[in-house]
Amino acid sequence: MPLVTVKLIEGVFSEAQKAEMVERLTEAMVAVEGENMRSLTLVILEEVKGGDWAVGGKRMTADQVKAIAAGERPT
Amino acid sequence: MPLVTVKLIEGVFSEAQKAEMVERLTEAMVAVEGENMRSLTLVILEEVKGGDWAVGGKRMTADQVKAIAAGERPT
Amino acid sequence: MPLVTVKLIEGVFSEAQKAEMVERLTEAMVAVEGENMRSLTLVILEEVKGGDWAVGGKRMTADQVKAIAAGERPT
Amino acid sequence: MPLVTVKLIEGVFSEAQKAEMVERLTEAMVAVEGENMRSLTLVILEEVKGGDWAVGGKRMTADQVKAIAAGERPT
Amino acid sequence: MPLVTVKLIEGVFSEAQKAEMVERLTEAMVAVEGENMRSLTLVILEEVKGGDWAVGGKRMTADQVKAIAAGERPT
Amino acid sequence: MPLVTVKLIEGVFSEAQKAEMVERLTEAMVAVEGENMRSLTLVILEEVKGGDWAVGGKRMTADQVKAIAAGERPT
Repeated sequence: MPLVTVKLIEGVFSEAQKAEMVERLTEAMVAVEGENMRSLTLVILEEVKGGDWAVGGKRMTADQVKAIAAGERPT
Repeated sequence: MPLVTVKLIEGVFSEAQKAEMVERLTEAMVAVEGENMRSLTLVILEEVKGGDWAVGGKRMTADQVKAIAAGERPT
Repeated sequence: MPLVTVKLIEGVFSEAQKAEMVERLTEAMVAVEGENMRSLTLVILEEVKGGDWAVGGKRMTADQVKAIAAGERPT
Repeated sequence: MPLVTVKLIEGVFSEAQKAEMVERLTEAMVAVEGENMRSLTLVILEEVKGGDWAVGGKRMTADQVKAIAAGERPT
Repeated sequence: MPLVTVKLIEGVFSEAQKAEMVERLTEAMVAVEGENMRSLTLVILEEVKGGDWAVGGKRMTADQVKAIAAGERPT
Repeated sequence: MPLVTVKLIEGVFSEAQKAEMVERLTEAMVAVEGENMRSLTLVILEEVKGGDWAVGGKRMTADQVKAIAAGERPT
């Protein structure tokens, strides 16, 4: 039953990171709900274009998010 | 940036389980995206009423999901 | 895989109508995707409060929607 | 009022299937809610990339879903 | 066409504020898209329970959000 | 906290219009919730392909929506 949807900005995460994300989120859910629920646990990743995500009115690009992740830019 | 939304059937999880879910999902995301992204990581839990969730046309109640979690009912 | 989500105003539809809705939507999907996909087909109903749905800036209540459905009010 | 959103994996369904899906889902809703509600009934299809949909932690591609639909692979 | 969905924590905003929110969001959209699009512009408010919204792993209650809005608590 | 999501048909709005949309929607929210909430206010734009949006069973393309906006086609 549980449906986990993750919204991301396109281009921020690599394929390997997305694969790891799916795995870790599924394990996080199974740790709470129990192993019997694993096959019912869905994870969907949804990507929006850079610039189509704004915080406090400031549109964020993939590069800006990567700079935050790298500690080169404040949140 | 990342926004994690979890859809659940109301009444399946206790408050303690929901708190643990939020914590584990946040840690799962931070493990992938890096510590600098923590304050930008959102988790929202959304609950729908029992019966308002159907798999293969069969509506599921909270009790049925709990029975699956307890291994008393096949998925 | 296919996930069908229906947003509704709370109180417009009876339990019997919601059950019929789940059944008919599932059959509609299976008619397109094929019988083998039935067990992977999800339907979720989500209800918002009357007044929390607006068209052209006009907030709609459950009673107004029922009046439209009954032909007592223009759309 | 009713808003039907369908999430799909990109590339699983043809344009013709998507057109049929919209038509059948609309008819399913109108059969429950009544003909007067037809012009208020919305259907939106949303596609995510293959691999961005996981069940039980297993990421699904469009080809895998097509193989399930064709009965060449278990669900 | 445009569909504006607003997710809120239940109990943060009064009915009067929600009515104003719907009006202002509709006008914001119409200012961009043009008056002819008004009747196609939808706004839906969705409320989640206090505690079911977390930023950086910290669950927020309606009272905490109100304290932030009142300037009695840092964001 | 408030999360504003706008679903649009791809190709209807220019980059400049999308930038204006984000700005106006953020100001609309801040006008209701207060200036202290600005940095917590998120706006996400999500685009679906032309044809993947249907009203009353009729699929709408970007060109059709533009014609409505220009007053060259009834809603």
